[in-house]
Amino acid sequence: MADQTKFLLTEKDIPKFWYNIQADLPEALPPVLHPGTGQPIGPDDLAPLFPMELIMQEVSQEREIEIPEPVRSAYQQWRPTPLYRAHRLEKALDTPAKIYYKYEGVSPSGSHKPNTAIPQAFFNKAEGINKIATETGAGQWGSSLAYAAALFDLEVQVFMVKVSFNQKPYRKAMMETFGASCIASPSDTTNAGRAILEKTPDSTGSLGIAISEAVEVAATNDDTKYALGSVLNHVLMHQTVIGQEAMRQMEMAGDYPDVVVGCSGGGSNFAGIALPFLGEKLRGGKDVRLVAIEPAACPSLTRGKYAYDFGDTAQMTPLVKMHTLGANFVPSGFHAGGLRYHGMAPILSHLYELGLSEAKALNQLECFEAGVLFGRTESIIPAPEATHAVRGAILEALRCKEEGKSETILFNLCGHGHFDMQAYTDFFAGKLNDQTYDESELAMALAGLPSVAHGSV
Amino acid sequence: MADQTKFLLTEKDIPKFWYNIQADLPEALPPVLHPGTGQPIGPDDLAPLFPMELIMQEVSQEREIEIPEPVRSAYQQWRPTPLYRAHRLEKALDTPAKIYYKYEGVSPSGSHKPNTAIPQAFFNKAEGINKIATETGAGQWGSSLAYAAALFDLEVQVFMVKVSFNQKPYRKAMMETFGASCIASPSDTTNAGRAILEKTPDSTGSLGIAISEAVEVAATNDDTKYALGSVLNHVLMHQTVIGQEAMRQMEMAGDYPDVVVGCSGGGSNFAGIALPFLGEKLRGGKDVRLVAIEPAACPSLTRGKYAYDFGDTAQMTPLVKMHTLGANFVPSGFHAGGLRYHGMAPILSHLYELGLSEAKALNQLECFEAGVLFGRTESIIPAPEATHAVRGAILEALRCKEEGKSETILFNLCGHGHFDMQAYTDFFAGKLNDQTYDESELAMALAGLPSVAHGSV
Repeated sequence: MADQTKFLLTEKDIPKFWYNIQADLPEALPPVLHPGTGQPIGPDDLAPLFPMELIMQEVSQEREIEIPEPVRSAYQQWRPTPLYRAHRLEKALDTPAKIYYKYEGVSPSGSHKPNTAIPQAFFNKAEGINKIATETGAGQWGSSLAYAAALFDLEVQVFMVKVSFNQKPYRKAMMETFGASCIASPSDTTNAGRAILEKTPDSTGSLGIAISEAVEVAATNDDTKYALGSVLNHVLMHQTVIGQEAMRQMEMAGDYPDVVVGCSGGGSNFAGIALPFLGEKLRGGKDVRLVAIEPAACPSLTRGKYAYDFGDTAQMTPLVKMHTLGANFVPSGFHAGGLRYHGMAPILSHLYELGLSEAKALNQLECFEAGVLFGRTESIIPAPEATHAVRGAILEALRCKEEGKSETILFNLCGHGHFDMQAYTDFFAGKLNDQTYDESELAMALAGLPSVAHGSV
Repeated sequence: MADQTKFLLTEKDIPKFWYNIQADLPEALPPVLHPGTGQPIGPDDLAPLFPMELIMQEVSQEREIEIPEPVRSAYQQWRPTPLYRAHRLEKALDTPAKIYYKYEGVSPSGSHKPNTAIPQAFFNKAEGINKIATETGAGQWGSSLAYAAALFDLEVQVFMVKVSFNQKPYRKAMMETFGASCIASPSDTTNAGRAILEKTPDSTGSLGIAISEAVEVAATNDDTKYALGSVLNHVLMHQTVIGQEAMRQMEMAGDYPDVVVGCSGGGSNFAGIALPFLGEKLRGGKDVRLVAIEPAACPSLTRGKYAYDFGDTAQMTPLVKMHTLGANFVPSGFHAGGLRYHGMAPILSHLYELGLSEAKALNQLECFEAGVLFGRTESIIPAPEATHAVRGAILEALRCKEEGKSETILFNLCGHGHFDMQAYTDFFAGKLNDQTYDESELAMALAGLPSVAHGSV
């Protein structure tokens, strides 16, 4: 037998609480502002959109938030997820580094998203809500919420970014199999969607636009709430089950990461694996580097402004301080649909500003090359988003090789690519390029940041 | 927490040998015959197609065949696979039965096929072979062999049945990602393919035709061997890792199956889970019912003849005694491509004749309905093939409900449906029907059975 490859926990080891980094931050997060008044908002301002329990989680300063039993029971269907030692990838790279990856693709929807879809569905249902509207990029979030809704008997309407809707038609089929409905965004079913279509009839959509549509449905229908699959504090917190499990699994492996790598669009999977390790460090534990990998075509951390901005294009959400490319920024149609968001989670933006994490923007082609190498060695074909984490980990491993260091690298393989094979087909056919962004469009989007962004807050 | 859902073994529990049912059969299998002489063939007759080690496994009467270390190491990437208790499905059915399923979809290709692809690649490489030709129906076998070939550095050429090639385009992308090449069959690259295309230019293909093409490539190229993903004794034997693990996992659950259910095309996944339990029974252990589920549109066990027939359409293979619809039978283009084979594995045919197993033919629509129910309750969207096993298990559970019996049902969930979502899309759009076969076409195919089938053997 080869050395141990998979480190597995039992269902009893499913975390009993979510970890809230806010309890350990050296500086508190900047407040969320009301777009009209420029003043910090309170829980009631968010009540039309979210159930109160999630709003309280959003602002909680408690270190541990207990995971309700029905949520842990639902997690049992696929959690704890496996931690792998990447023996074959290490060999292929001829690196002295040790590479581990946590694999979230074993979930019902094939990504980390159900970790937060389940509690969001549960807390909505607990407060008597029966309908949820949401957006989705690559479809991973939409299909996760669809599955969670099937468990807790909720209706779900998903607005899917049009370019991904066309690139990944079978995500819709998955949502329908789980019982949800899914339409392409921008759509003609909302004011926000119609306004975009009027100006840009052939719009390929963006997460910012799709959020506007879903928020509008929730805000204008008393019986409907809204759910977001990333960015928000409570969403990142739900994902910390990943990192908590990984800590125990690294212990089983007799190792501890020198560096934790994840891809980062809105930031939830990276936060999920990284924040528990950072918390350890902030409480005086072992040092660890955190490296967020973003797509070169949508580089909010490395090229965006740290400023107050809207979460959506139609400017319906409150203002949050984050690294942003501007809510009007429409990224090109590259294949990592889950990484096509104009902003970065406020928590991750804050940590980046504090120097507690690093960021790197990578091109599409090198990521797909890494994905193919990973598939051939480690057997799992990564989602286009996840190829960014793979490439990020490989770069760390190659650095170790150059420096002759046997560091331990841990990354989050946030999902499989079974619904993204057109991207691989295009890659092999030489049809993919290193998509980037138009500097003048970025400048314009940044110029459109709300004025409070430049204000005193 | 809910009651335990997943029963997990560690890598050390990966079986150390394959179980060979031939050692425990009450009557020996009928011999394989040379199509020219009608006489039993010897190992040398098969040498152009297979490495000698696999030929010896094919005829071995040893109960246990040791699994080589490199094969067990490769299995570590995904084995042991989980056994699930289907709590939520049981609840939805309101049945007193306990339902367990072994889930083989966690493998690199998403099905049970790598269990035999890995050893086949290994034994070929060990005998100096560098190229393999094979066929594939739904693409599960082709992508499994592609992955195995990546591990052992082999070239693989896959002939994929045309109707599936068109229905499941992303299987080709998966094979290419793993480094193999894949073309639609019938193709114009072989004599067998060209002959079919001349007679039937719009042929949608069949496994029998694709086998002819692959066998021709192997037989006419000294440096190339052939590999088959089901039907043969050694293939079924490699799959017994499924049942061996399941026995230990059922023990962990404190249960033992009253009935074992699997879908059956060529028969390998059903044999994989069922034969170890049958072996126990034949050696004086607990009784167990085995139920093979086949598609109503390709019902080799329930409607075929038990007769000598060719494994392929161009009549290039030796003659094996099996339940067959006739090697010229071309099943309709229903979605369970992996179940579209004209014959049933000789071992399973023999057991069926001996009254040691049962069979049931089910329609496409009821199977997809079962697949959707399974997805919504158990979170995994089954492959169209696997929906047959799901429906078979549900029928047993409903019988238990009617009879007020709390029996234990175990079935093999042989793969996920991530590459088959067009089938679910068609199902939701009302485009699927209960495909069946043309009685006169079946009669014609059966009339074409080779004469030795009616002879003295």
